[in-house]
Amino acid sequence: MSDKSSDKQYRAALIVIGNEILSGRTQDKNINYIAVALGENGISLAEVRIVPDIEGKIIEAIRDLRDVYDYVFTTGGIGPTHDDITSESVAKAFDVPWEVHPQAYEILETHYGVDDFTSARQKMAMTPRGATLIANPVSAAPGFVIGNVYVMAGVPKIMQAMMDDIVQGLKGGAVIQSRTVSSPLPESVIAQGLGEIQGRWPHVDIGSYPFFQNGAVGVSIVLRSVDEDVLGKAEAEVQALVDRRPG
Amino acid sequence: MSDKSSDKQYRAALIVIGNEILSGRTQDKNINYIAVALGENGISLAEVRIVPDIEGKIIEAIRDLRDVYDYVFTTGGIGPTHDDITSESVAKAFDVPWEVHPQAYEILETHYGVDDFTSARQKMAMTPRGATLIANPVSAAPGFVIGNVYVMAGVPKIMQAMMDDIVQGLKGGAVIQSRTVSSPLPESVIAQGLGEIQGRWPHVDIGSYPFFQNGAVGVSIVLRSVDEDVLGKAEAEVQALVDRRPG
Repeated sequence: MSDKSSDKQYRAALIVIGNEILSGRTQDKNINYIAVALGENGISLAEVRIVPDIEGKIIEAIRDLRDVYDYVFTTGGIGPTHDDITSESVAKAFDVPWEVHPQAYEILETHYGVDDFTSARQKMAMTPRGATLIANPVSAAPGFVIGNVYVMAGVPKIMQAMMDDIVQGLKGGAVIQSRTVSSPLPESVIAQGLGEIQGRWPHVDIGSYPFFQNGAVGVSIVLRSVDEDVLGKAEAEVQALVDRRPG
Repeated sequence: MSDKSSDKQYRAALIVIGNEILSGRTQDKNINYIAVALGENGISLAEVRIVPDIEGKIIEAIRDLRDVYDYVFTTGGIGPTHDDITSESVAKAFDVPWEVHPQAYEILETHYGVDDFTSARQKMAMTPRGATLIANPVSAAPGFVIGNVYVMAGVPKIMQAMMDDIVQGLKGGAVIQSRTVSSPLPESVIAQGLGEIQGRWPHVDIGSYPFFQNGAVGVSIVLRSVDEDVLGKAEAEVQALVDRRPG
């Protein structure tokens, strides 16, 4: 929400590939990390999909999202086991062959040694034709980029290293700044005034988040904008709104 | 993945509505709770979408998912403030009027008292025509059901109370059982054998999840099936596989 309407807004989608998140076995730790990393670089995470390890669902999600957003990221499913089907699914989504990537092959052969570079491990050297690699400083097996789709590991430690590396090279827009005003008021008391402030400041995105803490209610009002000046003015109005109303 | 192919599998989708998750300000706490609650009741969470507080995106997600899955759940956006647009968006997704729900109106008027039942609070009494209410034991403002879409609050404490209530009345299939075999082996060492076991037990869903802990690698192999007998046999094969291979 820039004040200068000519500024390009960069938007990304994330596809989390993992039965373990959907089954409830594992709590996702990647979405938040990626959201923050993108935000700091002027890219808004605009949509997330969590899909199972099913080829058709992965292909559908990639095809749905890659034309809509500037960047699409995926996490998970690029290891050596039978349930790691992301790489081959991405190849199918792009209608290109899935084949050995010579550079990935070399990295992995060096990592494991020629004698221990088994067929299961060789699977991790396969990418869609035309992909370029994303380095994996933790366990060697690389991710890759094809078109605007960035395919990363699901293990948080590896994903984070890949993301930190990728994000440096991504084109982003102005970074969205945020301010938070908290109050012990129930949000319904300030709802009308807050809506009026939002009406006056269309280029500030104002969100209202109620919370319960130690048995008491309260609300955090978060203001977000790329324009610091406008943001400060809207924040002052919100602060005045919550100060005016006694609890 | 039932051994008896006639058994109906119940599948659900979840739509998390919230700019605060996408901006990285808040870490989602609802997906895992819902995944577990559904799983315990024989319903598989098959897909999750996290979308912003934008009417078009909410409508699109509901329309995409409600015909594909037995149940669709939403969290977030049903409060009194200007950014709470879920209820009205659901009405539009169903092409029905958005109107005062008399029972919700009564509940809220009683909760706040006639004099303090402001227009902002009255907004929380609006639902799509034909909706039935989901009780909110925490802060009164109800959720609702329309068709197969269950609209819940985003505040975890309220969502959990609503979910616990809803899930009792949902029809589910056989509950999926799971077993986990852990090993300090790198997953690439067991990948081939694990693929062979998966091939022998098509009705068991076998997932392989590498981890890094205190600098050491390891893998958790998770087996899931509605059939305890088959599950036990497949588990024994996986256990034998990891025992056979020295680290």
